[in-house]
Amino acid sequence: MNNSNDKVSNLKIAYIGGGSRNWARKLMCDLALEPQLSGLVSLFDIDQEAAGHNVTIGNAISGRSEAAGTWRYEAVATIEQALTGADFVILSILPGTFEEMAVDVHAPEKYGIYQSVGDTVGPGGIIRALRTIPLFVDFARQIERYCPSAWVINYTNPMTLCTRTLYDTFPGIKAFGCCHEVFSAQEELSAILEVFGGVSGVERFEIETNVKGINHFTWIDRASYKGIDLMELYRIAADQFASEGYRATKEGRAPRQYGDWRWPKPLHFELFDRYGLIPAAGARHMVEFMPHEWYMSQTDADTLKNKWGFELTTVRSRIEYQDKQIEETKRIVAGDETVELKPSKEEGVRILKGLLGLETFVTNINVPNRGQLVGIPEGAVVESNALIQLGRITPLQAGELPLDLLSLVALHVYNQELVLKAGIRQDYSLGYKAFVKDPLVYMDLNKSKALYDEMLEGTCRYLNAR
Amino acid sequence: MNNSNDKVSNLKIAYIGGGSRNWARKLMCDLALEPQLSGLVSLFDIDQEAAGHNVTIGNAISGRSEAAGTWRYEAVATIEQALTGADFVILSILPGTFEEMAVDVHAPEKYGIYQSVGDTVGPGGIIRALRTIPLFVDFARQIERYCPSAWVINYTNPMTLCTRTLYDTFPGIKAFGCCHEVFSAQEELSAILEVFGGVSGVERFEIETNVKGINHFTWIDRASYKGIDLMELYRIAADQFASEGYRATKEGRAPRQYGDWRWPKPLHFELFDRYGLIPAAGARHMVEFMPHEWYMSQTDADTLKNKWGFELTTVRSRIEYQDKQIEETKRIVAGDETVELKPSKEEGVRILKGLLGLETFVTNINVPNRGQLVGIPEGAVVESNALIQLGRITPLQAGELPLDLLSLVALHVYNQELVLKAGIRQDYSLGYKAFVKDPLVYMDLNKSKALYDEMLEGTCRYLNAR
Amino acid sequence: MNNSNDKVSNLKIAYIGGGSRNWARKLMCDLALEPQLSGLVSLFDIDQEAAGHNVTIGNAISGRSEAAGTWRYEAVATIEQALTGADFVILSILPGTFEEMAVDVHAPEKYGIYQSVGDTVGPGGIIRALRTIPLFVDFARQIERYCPSAWVINYTNPMTLCTRTLYDTFPGIKAFGCCHEVFSAQEELSAILEVFGGVSGVERFEIETNVKGINHFTWIDRASYKGIDLMELYRIAADQFASEGYRATKEGRAPRQYGDWRWPKPLHFELFDRYGLIPAAGARHMVEFMPHEWYMSQTDADTLKNKWGFELTTVRSRIEYQDKQIEETKRIVAGDETVELKPSKEEGVRILKGLLGLETFVTNINVPNRGQLVGIPEGAVVESNALIQLGRITPLQAGELPLDLLSLVALHVYNQELVLKAGIRQDYSLGYKAFVKDPLVYMDLNKSKALYDEMLEGTCRYLNAR
Amino acid sequence: MNNSNDKVSNLKIAYIGGGSRNWARKLMCDLALEPQLSGLVSLFDIDQEAAGHNVTIGNAISGRSEAAGTWRYEAVATIEQALTGADFVILSILPGTFEEMAVDVHAPEKYGIYQSVGDTVGPGGIIRALRTIPLFVDFARQIERYCPSAWVINYTNPMTLCTRTLYDTFPGIKAFGCCHEVFSAQEELSAILEVFGGVSGVERFEIETNVKGINHFTWIDRASYKGIDLMELYRIAADQFASEGYRATKEGRAPRQYGDWRWPKPLHFELFDRYGLIPAAGARHMVEFMPHEWYMSQTDADTLKNKWGFELTTVRSRIEYQDKQIEETKRIVAGDETVELKPSKEEGVRILKGLLGLETFVTNINVPNRGQLVGIPEGAVVESNALIQLGRITPLQAGELPLDLLSLVALHVYNQELVLKAGIRQDYSLGYKAFVKDPLVYMDLNKSKALYDEMLEGTCRYLNAR
Repeated sequence: MNNSNDKVSNLKIAYIGGGSRNWARKLMCDLALEPQLSGLVSLFDIDQEAAGHNVTIGNAISGRSEAAGTWRYEAVATIEQALTGADFVILSILPGTFEEMAVDVHAPEKYGIYQSVGDTVGPGGIIRALRTIPLFVDFARQIERYCPSAWVINYTNPMTLCTRTLYDTFPGIKAFGCCHEVFSAQEELSAILEVFGGVSGVERFEIETNVKGINHFTWIDRASYKGIDLMELYRIAADQFASEGYRATKEGRAPRQYGDWRWPKPLHFELFDRYGLIPAAGARHMVEFMPHEWYMSQTDADTLKNKWGFELTTVRSRIEYQDKQIEETKRIVAGDETVELKPSKEEGVRILKGLLGLETFVTNINVPNRGQLVGIPEGAVVESNALIQLGRITPLQAGELPLDLLSLVALHVYNQELVLKAGIRQDYSLGYKAFVKDPLVYMDLNKSKALYDEMLEGTCRYLNAR
Repeated sequence: MNNSNDKVSNLKIAYIGGGSRNWARKLMCDLALEPQLSGLVSLFDIDQEAAGHNVTIGNAISGRSEAAGTWRYEAVATIEQALTGADFVILSILPGTFEEMAVDVHAPEKYGIYQSVGDTVGPGGIIRALRTIPLFVDFARQIERYCPSAWVINYTNPMTLCTRTLYDTFPGIKAFGCCHEVFSAQEELSAILEVFGGVSGVERFEIETNVKGINHFTWIDRASYKGIDLMELYRIAADQFASEGYRATKEGRAPRQYGDWRWPKPLHFELFDRYGLIPAAGARHMVEFMPHEWYMSQTDADTLKNKWGFELTTVRSRIEYQDKQIEETKRIVAGDETVELKPSKEEGVRILKGLLGLETFVTNINVPNRGQLVGIPEGAVVESNALIQLGRITPLQAGELPLDLLSLVALHVYNQELVLKAGIRQDYSLGYKAFVKDPLVYMDLNKSKALYDEMLEGTCRYLNAR
Repeated sequence: MNNSNDKVSNLKIAYIGGGSRNWARKLMCDLALEPQLSGLVSLFDIDQEAAGHNVTIGNAISGRSEAAGTWRYEAVATIEQALTGADFVILSILPGTFEEMAVDVHAPEKYGIYQSVGDTVGPGGIIRALRTIPLFVDFARQIERYCPSAWVINYTNPMTLCTRTLYDTFPGIKAFGCCHEVFSAQEELSAILEVFGGVSGVERFEIETNVKGINHFTWIDRASYKGIDLMELYRIAADQFASEGYRATKEGRAPRQYGDWRWPKPLHFELFDRYGLIPAAGARHMVEFMPHEWYMSQTDADTLKNKWGFELTTVRSRIEYQDKQIEETKRIVAGDETVELKPSKEEGVRILKGLLGLETFVTNINVPNRGQLVGIPEGAVVESNALIQLGRITPLQAGELPLDLLSLVALHVYNQELVLKAGIRQDYSLGYKAFVKDPLVYMDLNKSKALYDEMLEGTCRYLNAR
Repeated sequence: MNNSNDKVSNLKIAYIGGGSRNWARKLMCDLALEPQLSGLVSLFDIDQEAAGHNVTIGNAISGRSEAAGTWRYEAVATIEQALTGADFVILSILPGTFEEMAVDVHAPEKYGIYQSVGDTVGPGGIIRALRTIPLFVDFARQIERYCPSAWVINYTNPMTLCTRTLYDTFPGIKAFGCCHEVFSAQEELSAILEVFGGVSGVERFEIETNVKGINHFTWIDRASYKGIDLMELYRIAADQFASEGYRATKEGRAPRQYGDWRWPKPLHFELFDRYGLIPAAGARHMVEFMPHEWYMSQTDADTLKNKWGFELTTVRSRIEYQDKQIEETKRIVAGDETVELKPSKEEGVRILKGLLGLETFVTNINVPNRGQLVGIPEGAVVESNALIQLGRITPLQAGELPLDLLSLVALHVYNQELVLKAGIRQDYSLGYKAFVKDPLVYMDLNKSKALYDEMLEGTCRYLNAR
């Protein structure tokens, strides 16, 4: 790695899960568009063909005339090859297959438990964690061995437990988790600012927010743009929603050019009223952290969509989406289609630049708690703001959560500690102790045990495969 | 107060709620049987007639030839008179009437929520707390004014919040809460020791236990008698229960002379299996701290009794019991009946002696957390062991709870903090924030709000500034 | 106050100590040069004549054609008038007179204790604190009464105890302490960067540092400029100093245009070697926090200056400087001399802008510890980085200090807590408990008691209830 | 080990340092006098001859008709043999020889630093720790390997760091440190009770004290006997001392039958006046924790003895004492002299009985801080009360120290952490960081470095020998 004249060259990025059709290509575009960086991206994936395709695509993108940064892509046969000499490691894998995911998401439905995503907490999130933790124990060991000083960026879900596992295994690791959910909340605040504050065209990263919570259940208790207090504007919007209904706040209001999605959902306003803080993740994520009876008990799609503004993501829809991506990849590799070279709205490359000293900024990040989130145990992975600078990530003090929110966050944190131990020790009775405490799993004890056993069975290939 | 030759005379005890027909008479007997103490008991009650009856009864008891300690009883018209000059204050009141209690316990039943006691947590416990806190704010202020150095013993439920309120209002108070639930657990351990260890006749205070938790949800993680580890014996009993059913452990086993009650209930064995700790309160209390679906959803009396070993205490049964007590009191005051002079099995008088330097011992007590219960916020009132000595109560380090139990205890602790604030500020929207998080109140949000409002209405006479 | 179009008008700043000849005029210049702000500065001083002079001077500056911001200055007769309606309060007073200061600084010399400043810790700092705390108790009460929502900037020494007193008296206060000592360390790092890194012209606020400690005893453990690690460059400079002497690092090296002062002193290099962190306050301040025998025992001026690079500031020199300032003021008020309108290098106005939403940035600040400085008790006032934004100051996590530095900082923190209590309760026996523990006061106990009593006597006019 | 009928037989005690002429024989007597215990004591010592002598002596004692307990003694050639199967391990060694100790104690004298013991803190204590830590790392590893469940009692100094090292190396160890210094304080309180309270014949273990601090610098803030507050009596004694001098409190007062030593020394009264707590270790230990100028600067023997009541223990006197013991041992082994069979006043055997369930009691103990001493970091070894029961040691909450004492204790705790790291990593530059901060080492930096290097050299055989 060479760092001079505001440029860094000869960087090596190891990409674990390098066959990714989604995240990997966003990275390729962002790297290509970044004039201050250049180097090598080493792709490792258990699906070697997919990694190979990405080499073709990545090198093609990098070779295009519009590409500002010069990058070479390679696919390697072992994780050791990828990690050796790496300055940065990206962890972005799919733990298991859609077969396991179908169990995670849909097995609980026979007991009336519906999940909107199923990859974070809830029955699906817990089972997914149990099969993911052993993989991350292994990643941490390999990183300790081959590139202990590298910065490690995790994109894999469940974000909190993946990051927590890395630190548990190799405490000296320099890892953090990145997630774009808060960015959407900032987009929504920008729209609120436009509609209720009369200021348009503000980029989401110009919106200043104090973020606190755990990944996918994050909250904003202070938000401003220059001299404007956005908490007050959000209050106005929420009050209007409460008195006049969702249409009144949305119809013709959400700035047209960004589309419907750039507006808080009914659930967001409801939660703002309940807790006094702005929900800073998508409704379908937030809802999974709370008792099932609160927002998930009416499970027909229309009700959920109309009443609360979110849908249940089925595994079938994921498979369909993947099939399309595979087809698209074939066309791109064959040269029949071109990747559109545009910024991804993700922040990975910006953080790389920050850690290399090319930019200093504040953003939200998932790292172990060292006091930034008051009331949550030390070491638990929390999501809050940090200052990104040359070679360091310094958390800001996020402060306290209101007591009723704190007890909900704490419940999940303690559950995650149990799941961590379960995964590390492969003691699945510990996993059930967390499972039965999950707010989506509020049911007869015999039933919850039967469901847990069934789901564990459904993911057992990844528990025994160690 | 005079302290010499291992005797303390001229003590003054202020008894707030001094018309009590139950606790007050236990105290009268214990004092009468105690040769090292003598003095004055000053009874204050809003029911002055009841206090007057107790003066008659108390002086009669003290005058009997078997009485070892000499005590004079008086009824006073103001709390100021009772407190002035007091060395000890006993707080033992009924907050509200059976009318309010009927709402606490039975109003939730229309939503399918059953409570076995309804005075600690759960919907009933929360509403009861809201009307009790203002009373205890007042007690704390009066104590600060009239006898700031007195030791204050609270017997009133909800124990935790009553004690917490005293410290919140007058931080310099020397208060603690006493409860006999743990004593029963020790009686049960004595029975277990007899049946599975072959040692009989062991008094409950000879059983050494490490107690941890919050009042009515206490746990034992270490128990021994001399060289015998009682955790191991309990494990044997629980295993037998699991494999052969409750009859196998109980029938013909629970030592006959003490009766049926001196044996762990099925729920106790179930919880021991789940958490690895011995439940140290009665089943009907423990069960109210856990999700309603776990043990309360089958509400017909026989099922609960047979399956888990506890019953739902109705307010009707309380009224009937009180009526009998009133009749009995009349007969005693009239001289037609005599109070049986026997030890109460309560520990109040022993603690008095301890604080006066007449005895040093370890027992369980409710005081603010100063680190004795790891993982629970400072200042929250917890129940654990303390050393009682001349003029001081020194908590022992109770240590940690298992994570899945910790998250349950923490939930209630946070809820209690919310209820405290709600009661102090008379801000009942805060009370609902706790209400909705209670594990017995797991339901549709509209319904829980309707229930809360109805219950609040039912207790509104006691909420001053609503 | 009006906030629109990136401008804030109708601000009211209350300046307590508004007769100041130094800090007040720096503020006048900075305000005049700031185009985004305008309003009223209300000066209060017990020296009303001095405040009156500043009105004349301030209005003249504001009226000059080069002035970008429009400000009106007034002198008021009561602190109430100054505070009422204030958006910001500046506290910048001299506690006592030079007579008291002479005792602070010089009385210990007869026992061989020399102080380089005598206003922070050490015997002088402790006595100064004892007479300042009652004044700050009063300020806090007045602020609570007349402008509880105002931001309060303290410039008065002892910085730590003044700020601590404000929070102790009025916990809801929005106060912080500002000090420019760290700025000099950043200037020095800019010079190091020029000499050893070959990059010149870098402004001190472009240097990114992680600041930690207590005011006047602050340390930097991470420093960078863009991609350059300044800790490494400082190491090179310190090694050269160690092997070749001070001249080798300085002569011809310290960038000429800024003069000699812009270079670490020998003491700085020595302390960097000892602790591995860069000292971030002037040598004459740092040295007062450490055992007298380490760096203060050779007290002839030449030795100290040559060996360690700092001098003892006598009260005589302060008086001479003040006399000059008084003369200068007369000339300015008479119109015979003009204030040079240039930026002050202080940061007060920038922080005002930050809190008004006109700029977001990270700087070092003195506020109560809420976890930002690991190992130091909650509530103690510490100095470290914070993010300044609209309406909020968010500390960054400064992390830990090395153990040998932590124990030194902790000693002073505990001492400051003792002095706080001594000042609040006017219990001067508590003050002696701190006095005798100060590292500059390492002596026979009889002597330290005699010295303390003498110094207390010397400041007794300011100790109300002795 | 068999535990039945209130007797435990077949115990195995491993005694590391089993050639001891002092502690080992006290243990032999206490074991012989204890009717409830019997078993094997396995002695290991690098001085195998000395261990062999103790086998002869121990078996002889055990065989005497007055011996109540039956014990067999063996000397083994390896630590493995001693530890295998042990229920208890006693660590009681002399780290290094008198040659090293002479350097510890006397080398600093040429710089005017006198030490009264030199084995705990101060220059001597630090150097001694540096050579002892590697030995204790080794002990911890062997215990983990051969008897991980055994209870480990440490008697070796420096007590705090030896115990800390055991936990640092093997966190699962069940170790604690025992020291008799507090017992003497309790004897003194018994004498105070006799003289000022008129109650005689009270045993030291009947005196109830709240102990807090670190070994050899322990304090009592609550003391009572039955209904009598001993803090008040101590105050009377200290006041008399202050006004009338030491003779007034002592002459003819210290109960004759116990001799002079059973009375607080002038230093104790002085410290009680200074801190409000009763010093609970001998004056010669307490004094080493405080600045040298306070009590050690007058070093002629008579002054120290007369003014403060303690003497400097020279290594010469230790050698002379040892020579006598060697002679005595020869006579005993030869049968020319008999060991007097009397209780030792030590508490080791009582604690054994407690841990075996034969007795439950409160005593002071050295274990890692888990919150029992507020303000001191978790994990640091502190001395305070604990409840001893079957298989467990439960610390009581000792509470807070006054701020000026806390800062002194904290200084030593941080220093000990530095010395621990220095010893573990064999990084002696870290040791100097502690050395220079020790309150006895308040001197020119060049001199302290020279002294440290000299002392390190003097102990180097034990640093290189690893």
